[in-house]
Amino acid sequence: LSDPVVVLAGGTGGAKLARGMLDVVDSPEQLVVIANTGDDVEIHGGYVSPDPDLVTFWLADQIDDRGWGLAGDTFAVMDGLRALGEEVWFNLGDRDLAVCLQRAARLDGGARLTDAQAAVANAFGVRARVLPMSDAPVRTRVVAHGRSWSLQEFLIAGRGAGPVDDVSFAGAAGATPTREVLDAIAAARAIVIGPSNPVISIGPILALRGMRQALRDSRAPVVAVSPIVRGRVLKGPTAVFMEWTGRALDADGIAGYYDGVIDGLVADDPASRVPTLQTDVLMADADSRRRVAEACLGFAAGLG
Amino acid sequence: LSDPVVVLAGGTGGAKLARGMLDVVDSPEQLVVIANTGDDVEIHGGYVSPDPDLVTFWLADQIDDRGWGLAGDTFAVMDGLRALGEEVWFNLGDRDLAVCLQRAARLDGGARLTDAQAAVANAFGVRARVLPMSDAPVRTRVVAHGRSWSLQEFLIAGRGAGPVDDVSFAGAAGATPTREVLDAIAAARAIVIGPSNPVISIGPILALRGMRQALRDSRAPVVAVSPIVRGRVLKGPTAVFMEWTGRALDADGIAGYYDGVIDGLVADDPASRVPTLQTDVLMADADSRRRVAEACLGFAAGLG
Repeated sequence: LSDPVVVLAGGTGGAKLARGMLDVVDSPEQLVVIANTGDDVEIHGGYVSPDPDLVTFWLADQIDDRGWGLAGDTFAVMDGLRALGEEVWFNLGDRDLAVCLQRAARLDGGARLTDAQAAVANAFGVRARVLPMSDAPVRTRVVAHGRSWSLQEFLIAGRGAGPVDDVSFAGAAGATPTREVLDAIAAARAIVIGPSNPVISIGPILALRGMRQALRDSRAPVVAVSPIVRGRVLKGPTAVFMEWTGRALDADGIAGYYDGVIDGLVADDPASRVPTLQTDVLMADADSRRRVAEACLGFAAGLG
Repeated sequence: LSDPVVVLAGGTGGAKLARGMLDVVDSPEQLVVIANTGDDVEIHGGYVSPDPDLVTFWLADQIDDRGWGLAGDTFAVMDGLRALGEEVWFNLGDRDLAVCLQRAARLDGGARLTDAQAAVANAFGVRARVLPMSDAPVRTRVVAHGRSWSLQEFLIAGRGAGPVDDVSFAGAAGATPTREVLDAIAAARAIVIGPSNPVISIGPILALRGMRQALRDSRAPVVAVSPIVRGRVLKGPTAVFMEWTGRALDADGIAGYYDGVIDGLVADDPASRVPTLQTDVLMADADSRRRVAEACLGFAAGLG
């Protein structure tokens, strides 16, 4: 497909922007979301892929109001595990677990992660493409409170509480973006980094071998949407991770983190080092999601 | 524990007898059930162990009326898999799946199957011991209708329809009974083979390396309960498997199958080659289960 819009996404912020973008592009196939897989975890017999699934559930309008998982899902298996005396730190709904069990079975059968994830999108009727950033395993590790955590452990069991002492993306240096990812970036008319946590949601994508070069080589302008809304981060522990980078929690801090990657920033406060589209980046409903997505495309077109 | 009663069990018949025996022994710890693991299957991310679990659910009075699985269980994950387009040939309830996921995680963590199964019994408050026949994998294979099936596939997807062309127990020749199994057999005051399918439920247990010798070496009398009630088999495809062995579907056929193993047979029709306790072996309710269990112990004591 020619000239897709590419969104780089981690958790909720990127997923919301992708949902807005779905309303803006001419056809769903014009939207390609490259999703972070650094949070993936094998648990409860399943292959859990939090960010690609979150994006898929958002695009399918099946995200639950709680902010993760499938709308109206039940939790019988997790209740069963607890009744068996297990400490369930990672909660998965029953239909969500079915998704993860099926994906694990496909991967065990030799499928690429890209194809296993495409099957999820297909099952949910999502015609936009949701691409795992890589088929090779990359695992985000966080050092905090004197121990090393997987990202989901840190966010859930550790409640995302700082200070963070180190962040690393195990496997990233040897993992390449997939052919699908590289093709989408090369063909894109615009590349938008969603307002997800820069360090732990977008960081793993940028850490892939060859990813920064691929973004530089693309003819498309790259713009990032700041996750900071009126000076605050709405969801997740972006602040503690930005603090670890030594950058301020403002547009300049975000622009600094993305230095060498972005051509422009969309934020509600101005950045000094990069062209900024200053606009309200709150995406509280479908209208505002669509408005921010449109603003990104217009801004990117002006930078191209 | 001294002088346990040992029950060899496969599916429903053996589990019902074990439940009756629980009412007869002085304390639950006096009951040891050695359960067939030839039907075990890794599926849906879990380690499914149909016979040990069936026995456990019976002993915990949590067997569902449908004859398998946990009473009142829900099926949200299987429904989820079907909604994803999967053909679900092996149906597992949600709480049942939780049992299987937890067991798989324990085995992945290096636990012996014996210990992983003991944890299931413990979680369900079962104080009788339910011992997998072996910690090593044994898998029952059935050749029928021109192909080879795992046992559960044959029973579920193939509906257990004969004729059966071959039965084998992959791995059995190299698999030994566990230390716990051998100790229980050596210490037993009575060994009762439950009225499960002789070929596919008890056959795998007898096929283990050293099992027949262990039964012969035990000072305990070995009696089998015939699965044939008033000339018919109540549950499961015993007939097609007995037909494969070339034996009649009567007490003589059962006694012949267990030749060299049993000292006596409990059946509602007389066997000519082995001492027979002729009695009603229908176990339709708690009273009749207890009565058959008592009859087995009295009969065995007289043979000792």
